[in-house]
This record gives sequence, structure tokens and C-alpha cells, in this order.
Amino acid sequence: MTNDAPIPVPVSLLRPPTDDLLDVVGIGSPLVDVICRVEDAVLDRLGLTKGSMELISLDQAEAIYASMGSSIEVSGGSAANTVAGVAALGGKAGFIGKVADDAMGEVFTHDISASGVDFEAAIVPADEAGTGRCLVMVTEDAERTMATHLGVANTFAPGDVDGHLLARTKITYLEGYLFDLPPAKEAMRQAVEATHAADGSVALTLSDSFCVERHRSDFLGLFDGDIDLLFANHDEIVALFGAKGLDAALDALEETGVLGAITLGADGSMIVTPAGRIAVPAAPVATVVDTNGAGDLFAAGFLYGITNGLDPEASGRLGGLCAAEVISHLGARPQADLRRLASEAGLI
Amino acid sequence: MTNDAPIPVPVSLLRPPTDDLLDVVGIGSPLVDVICRVEDAVLDRLGLTKGSMELISLDQAEAIYASMGSSIEVSGGSAANTVAGVAALGGKAGFIGKVADDAMGEVFTHDISASGVDFEAAIVPADEAGTGRCLVMVTEDAERTMATHLGVANTFAPGDVDGHLLARTKITYLEGYLFDLPPAKEAMRQAVEATHAADGSVALTLSDSFCVERHRSDFLGLFDGDIDLLFANHDEIVALFGAKGLDAALDALEETGVLGAITLGADGSMIVTPAGRIAVPAAPVATVVDTNGAGDLFAAGFLYGITNGLDPEASGRLGGLCAAEVISHLGARPQADLRRLASEAGLI
Repeated sequence: MTNDAPIPVPVSLLRPPTDDLLDVVGIGSPLVDVICRVEDAVLDRLGLTKGSMELISLDQAEAIYASMGSSIEVSGGSAANTVAGVAALGGKAGFIGKVADDAMGEVFTHDISASGVDFEAAIVPADEAGTGRCLVMVTEDAERTMATHLGVANTFAPGDVDGHLLARTKITYLEGYLFDLPPAKEAMRQAVEATHAADGSVALTLSDSFCVERHRSDFLGLFDGDIDLLFANHDEIVALFGAKGLDAALDALEETGVLGAITLGADGSMIVTPAGRIAVPAAPVATVVDTNGAGDLFAAGFLYGITNGLDPEASGRLGGLCAAEVISHLGARPQADLRRLASEAGLI
Repeated sequence: MTNDAPIPVPVSLLRPPTDDLLDVVGIGSPLVDVICRVEDAVLDRLGLTKGSMELISLDQAEAIYASMGSSIEVSGGSAANTVAGVAALGGKAGFIGKVADDAMGEVFTHDISASGVDFEAAIVPADEAGTGRCLVMVTEDAERTMATHLGVANTFAPGDVDGHLLARTKITYLEGYLFDLPPAKEAMRQAVEATHAADGSVALTLSDSFCVERHRSDFLGLFDGDIDLLFANHDEIVALFGAKGLDAALDALEETGVLGAITLGADGSMIVTPAGRIAVPAAPVATVVDTNGAGDLFAAGFLYGITNGLDPEASGRLGGLCAAEVISHLGARPQADLRRLASEAGLI
């Protein structure tokens, strides 16, 4: 590991800027988060594993919602949160996903468009499934446990991917959660090909260590030329490589030659590049209220950074700053002016 | 003014507790708040007066929403916020209001019921009007400006008031905003009679100084035996009595014989009783994020206090504590455990 000399962004992630290019296009499940605070005992009673994301049916969603306290609704979805953050920093961002023509679809569409993101949605008529909802239960320790009813996002498939956005993006950002859905997996494969054909790069977030356990071999297969940049947290990267600990996992990641941005909670992040590793400290946060969105917004800052001329270390700092903002309140979308925060911190 | 001897709750507000009694029943417009941060220039462009609440049509609501940034949705409505706060403190509370059978009506109904409030709703089939929405724009100074499309709450009328709840309440709490709607005004008059017939007391919040300007003579008429307790802030009480300043307004209030709880922002509150006045300091708050709900939650703490054996000063302190919690985040419903906060502060 060395922090001595500035480490450059790998050439494969650089693309000459033109007026028409987008910095990041995200592909994922559009969701509206329904957030409330719960005691740990509630998770036990509902049979949910703390810190995980579980897919649930409409019936389960209704039963869990009925047992939840007074909630707040905020647009969510992992990749959508990330591109909203990129746009909040002043970047050019797009999003691809599937919503229903209903009240929650209207909320999601309003919010992501109002964030400045170019949303080319697959909109389907409202039916029983509806727009996806994520029930987010936040415990005293600020950890979040999620139960997601994907609704119409469950049928996301190759025909829902818009090749026009992918032909214009520097980086296509994929959420690992999509690997739970076979047609979405195929859509992601096509997106990888379309992005590379247009000289763009592909980034993947592992999303969730339980998701990694379910799809380890699929994820490992992506290192064979499909992805150029990986986002993961401690548990996810260890799970991916079946490693004995973080160091072993980082060694394994380094061998793949893929750029890695690994979040480590209060310990900040570790950027793994072909030219060495960079430890980046966490940004200070007064009170951690809700960790939901921490990884998504770290990715936003990092992606904005490397597509806008920052080196990997500064990009990691920007990621940490964005993550610190989003964990200081309920909800996984930024509430403060990220661009101003970044400017005040001297990062942009 | 004296703070020397404990000042008791006026006898008219005391009612012997029984298992079946509710502490507070609120009557008001059920709303879902759609909250976003804006710059002052946006208010100017939309023609909205900072700090006010304005009623708008569906077309206006759609136009303003389209120009708003990424938002969060939280159940709101002034009186509904108050009874949710009473319930969060452990009190028994009810609410009467009109919602549509649509997604936002479902959100409102879930949240108020999940708060522990007995909601006897007038539910009407979903039509174009829908459940009421309040567009809340929060500026840098944490002030909120509101544009409300009442939806089906616009037709709230005497037939929508449930006499059963009013026969069981210690205090019926009315929001002044209802005076903007003639049929609702008649419904409020019937509610006052039903409450008094069952030996309950009636509280009114003036809601908004612009609302007071619109209905001053109606409000003043209520002091002739209709109301027993008044909530107002500085601007509202001054507007009500057309007074030269706060002291003159408080003198005028004292002459009416009605118990008054006057909120004064960072200066705390002033409780005006027939036996003298009590100045209550504000509770500390680290960062004021959004003042929306400050008055509603002050009323929650005060109402819980006086219906649960606290003297007016302690009730004012509890009100201040609840207000401090709600202004520390976006949204006008409590996010922290109010009962625990009150217990830690030695108030309950």
C-alpha cells in the first residue's frame, strides 16, 4: 500500500468529454422507500435478518406495512440513489428502470427527474403489483433492514434497456440486486456489451453480502472483462472472494486488475488500483441516524469524482462526504446541497 | 407575571379519568406533506408568501409540484400532527377528518393509526380531488412555506363529525385552518356543542396569522363560551387582537379568561392563565432544520401535560421539548421516541 505518490485513474475509465456525454447511467430497480424506526424485537417477530435486504411478495409487504409504525416515504432504489447523488454534485446522470403508472411511480419519476437525472423509464399500466416499494426498518443503532416488494420492477428485462443512454455514458453503473432476477441479468449483460461497444466503462455494486452469497459465481464471472470498477463493503468483498478477512479479499481483488472502491464504515474506504491502494478516512458526521444509502452515496461521490477529473483519493473523499450527509437523516437521497458541501470541503 | 407559586390547571379543563376517556380528539384536514428544500427565489417565482399557508387548486398543485425538487412524503395536517404527538407521548388520542380511498389516503390512514391514534375517518371514493396534499417548501433559514390542495378535505362538513369520539374526549382540538371552509365551520360549531354537552373542553389553534386576518371576527366570537384553551404564536395572537405588540395582545387574551399557550420561537412560550402568566424557556435544539410542525408538536406536549396531571408550566416545558424534536428534521411528525425524551427530561 502506498499513499505517497498520486495514483491516477486507470486509462480505461477515462473518456474524452463532449457536450453530449453523461457521466453515469444507473440501471436498477426504481423503488419508493417506506421508512420507520423499529425496535430490534420487531425484526425478530417479522423473521427479518438485521442489515439484509429481502425480496417479499405483495401479501408480505402489506402484512409488514400493517405492523410498521408511522413512516416517511422517500424515493429510493440503490442505483437510483447513486445517480441522484451524481446529479446533486453537478454531474450528468441517467437512469434506466421500470415503474407503474400509479401514485408511487409518479413520486419516483418526479423525484429523479427533479434531481436532474435523465430518466428513460419503462412505464407499464398500473396493476396489482404497482411500482416497487422498499420497507426500510431503522433500528436504534442506525442500521437498516429492508424488505422489498419489487412490483413491476420484477419483470425488468432486456427490452426495457434503452441503448441510447448507454451509447452516451462514460460509466454504466449496475446494482447487484438485479442478479436476483434472471431476465434482469440478461438485460445487464446486454447493457455491458452496449456500454463497451461505445467505449464506456462498467461499474458494479455488490449491493448486499447475502446477495453475493446467492450469486457468487455469476459475480466472479464478471471480472473476466465485463466490469471495470467494483463497489463493495467489507462483508461483501469478503463474501465475494470467500476470503479469510479483508486483507485477503483486497489481495484477491487486486489480482483481478479491476479498480475497487471498498467502503469500511467508520474506517472510511480503501481504493484498490492496479498501481496500489489508497486508504481514505471517513468524513465526520455528528449523529448517525440511518445508514441506508451510505454505500449508494459513496458511489455517487466516487463516480462523480473519477468522471470529472479528480484522482482516486479525492474521489474517495468526495464519496465519504456524500455518505456522511445521507446517514445524518432518514432516507437514502441527499437532503443538503451536495455540490456546496463538496465545494466547502475544497473537493470540487 | 409571576413564576413564584405553582399555577394550577383551570378547573374547567379537568375531567375525572376513566378507562374509556380520550385525552385529545383533533379535528382537521388530513394531509400528506410533500417536502423539499428551496431557495427563496423559488417562492418569489411561484408567488408564495414566505411562512404562510395558501390554499391552491389541483392545477396549481400540479404546476408547483412539477417545479419542486426531489421531495419526501410524510403524513401531516396540523391537528393530525398534534394528536400523533399526544399518542407518541403515551396519551389517548383520536382524530376526525376526511380522506379519499387512494394511495395517499392509505398512507395517511396507516400513519395515524400506527401512531396509536383512533382515526374515525370519513372515507370517500377516490376521484380527481383525492386525499389532500400540502406542498411544503423549506428555505435555508428553516422557515416553511406551504401550498395546500385540500382535495376531498375541502368538503368536510357536519355529517363527517363522529359524535362518539367527542362524547369521550377530555379536550377537542380544532385547527383554525378549518375556518377557511364554510361547511367545516359549521361542523366545528357542532363539535364544540357535542364536546361541551359531554363535559369536555375545547381547544383552538389559530394556525396562521394570515388565516387570523381572514377570520378575525369569527375567531373572536369563539371566546364567548365556545373555547377553553387557545394556542397561538406571536404573530397570530397580535393579529387576533389587532394589538400594538405582544404585551398588549397577552393583556387582551387574559381578559377573555381563556387559558392561552403562546409559542414564541426561540424565546420559548408564555402560558396565560386566569391566575397569572408563566414564561417557559425553549428546549435546546442542535440544528433547526425545518420549523414545520413546531406549533403542532408544542400543542401535543401541552395537551398531553394538562390532561395527564402536569401543571401548566411543566406542560409548557413538555410542549417545548416536543417542538424541539420536530424542528430538528424534515417533516412535522415526531421521528424520535417522545415518551422516552420526556422521561429523560424528568417531565413524565
